[in-house]
Amino acid sequence: MLCEFKVTRRVEFSETDMAGIMHFSNFFKFMETAEHAFFRSLGYSIHTVLPDGMEVGWPRVRAECSYSAPVRFEDEVEIHLLVQNISRKSITYDFIFRRLNGEEDQEVARGALTVVCVAHNGAGKMQAIPIPAAIAEKIKTAPQYQS
Amino acid sequence: MLCEFKVTRRVEFSETDMAGIMHFSNFFKFMETAEHAFFRSLGYSIHTVLPDGMEVGWPRVRAECSYSAPVRFEDEVEIHLLVQNISRKSITYDFIFRRLNGEEDQEVARGALTVVCVAHNGAGKMQAIPIPAAIAEKIKTAPQYQS
Amino acid sequence: MLCEFKVTRRVEFSETDMAGIMHFSNFFKFMETAEHAFFRSLGYSIHTVLPDGMEVGWPRVRAECSYSAPVRFEDEVEIHLLVQNISRKSITYDFIFRRLNGEEDQEVARGALTVVCVAHNGAGKMQAIPIPAAIAEKIKTAPQYQS
Amino acid sequence: MLCEFKVTRRVEFSETDMAGIMHFSNFFKFMETAEHAFFRSLGYSIHTVLPDGMEVGWPRVRAECSYSAPVRFEDEVEIHLLVQNISRKSITYDFIFRRLNGEEDQEVARGALTVVCVAHNGAGKMQAIPIPAAIAEKIKTAPQYQS
Repeated sequence: MLCEFKVTRRVEFSETDMAGIMHFSNFFKFMETAEHAFFRSLGYSIHTVLPDGMEVGWPRVRAECSYSAPVRFEDEVEIHLLVQNISRKSITYDFIFRRLNGEEDQEVARGALTVVCVAHNGAGKMQAIPIPAAIAEKIKTAPQYQS
Repeated sequence: MLCEFKVTRRVEFSETDMAGIMHFSNFFKFMETAEHAFFRSLGYSIHTVLPDGMEVGWPRVRAECSYSAPVRFEDEVEIHLLVQNISRKSITYDFIFRRLNGEEDQEVARGALTVVCVAHNGAGKMQAIPIPAAIAEKIKTAPQYQS
Repeated sequence: MLCEFKVTRRVEFSETDMAGIMHFSNFFKFMETAEHAFFRSLGYSIHTVLPDGMEVGWPRVRAECSYSAPVRFEDEVEIHLLVQNISRKSITYDFIFRRLNGEEDQEVARGALTVVCVAHNGAGKMQAIPIPAAIAEKIKTAPQYQS
Repeated sequence: MLCEFKVTRRVEFSETDMAGIMHFSNFFKFMETAEHAFFRSLGYSIHTVLPDGMEVGWPRVRAECSYSAPVRFEDEVEIHLLVQNISRKSITYDFIFRRLNGEEDQEVARGALTVVCVAHNGAGKMQAIPIPAAIAEKIKTAPQYQS
């Protein structure tokens, strides 16, 4: 494991559905929330403009989630991000979701995101590029989270 | 009344909340759905690039909705757009929402949107501009909907 | 003014749209976020089950928002809730949105929500009821926020 | 392959993000849209109440999507649902997303959902149950879609 990061979010009313639980698609938004908070913790924004004016983006090439228990309105959910792999142009993150519940926390889901580093040119086209060295270095050397 | 337009949408599961009804914020997305379908019916996209390369946008300056009855999963909702006013740089739309129910439809909400015509310059700044004549003319002369 | 409350939220990537700004419908979700945090600050959940087993809900009868400036990804937005009126069965909240910006904050929007207190019976029907005394008392006497 | 189904949806403005493309989480909502339209095509609602008053639900136990090209505002996206497997208590659907583009369509993503059939009891608890025979029979014998 390269490095990891944790962030907590409370389930909002608008994220629930008529089954009384958080809609499954919101776990993917939670993954992204953690990914972006992780970047901020490294001193970067996920929305980076390089010195040469090129905009860097991180489109997803794969997303997955396995659900073991529902979460409900006002539940506090810990999103535990782990950098599972970093290659020249892409990063794979694993995510473990836990419902915080006072004394005994419960794992409720596990997910993963694979993202590719791209540059946006002026015409709105995206092209995969090597992860900028400064960012890659930060991710590789980030101290491992102490839970 | 200048002109009007109707479009129908079915309430999706992800649009409901734990109260078992469509979340109130989605009525605003429905207004926008009707606004954009209205523009397409005139032969335009709401996302227009003018011949000089300027991108035209329509940010909202005001949005409101009054709710008289809930709508639920799989309800068919008619969104009735009426151009309430068009000035040099802005348009106000009124919306009437009806739940289609076979023989007797039920009005469930009324809303309004006021939008301003802007140009986006290269630096991401927006500036209010007169509504392009071709679009304003279409809206003024669009045939009135016969319900 | 009866009482007030403030909460801060960071704009997420999934809340932006292709115009590069937060989608206008999300301001209504932000109002709800503040309303629910306000209830928690009083020791209640917006999703309350009374001692007699009756579920209390707060459907919206009116929502409105006026926008004066856009907010963007990663902006910190302060949502300032003010109880504008509380009657026997309904509450009207006003909201002031400010973009926190280090030294000089900027007001970006103002909104309002009128909600009605209802009881859900077993058959999924809602009926307006007087606001439970314990909740009404808390709202009336909550200390005024000192900004 | 047991049976299949196709439905088309236009990408809405509120589904885009600041990268100018549809936010990746919406592909999961599109899968659900197709699943529910598929159920309606069989004469059922995904929200079914059995003769004994038991409510049947279909929570997700796994969701995944691989993205090969972005889709943008106003793109028409065909969601092609294929029943990949049906067991006693669960169904796995595969999805192929194509951007409809006049003459040449382009595959943009592939996904899958595994759902479990559950009954909701009065206390809000869910319990896995065998798929009701009437529903299982319809899915197994549904005519294969002719594209």
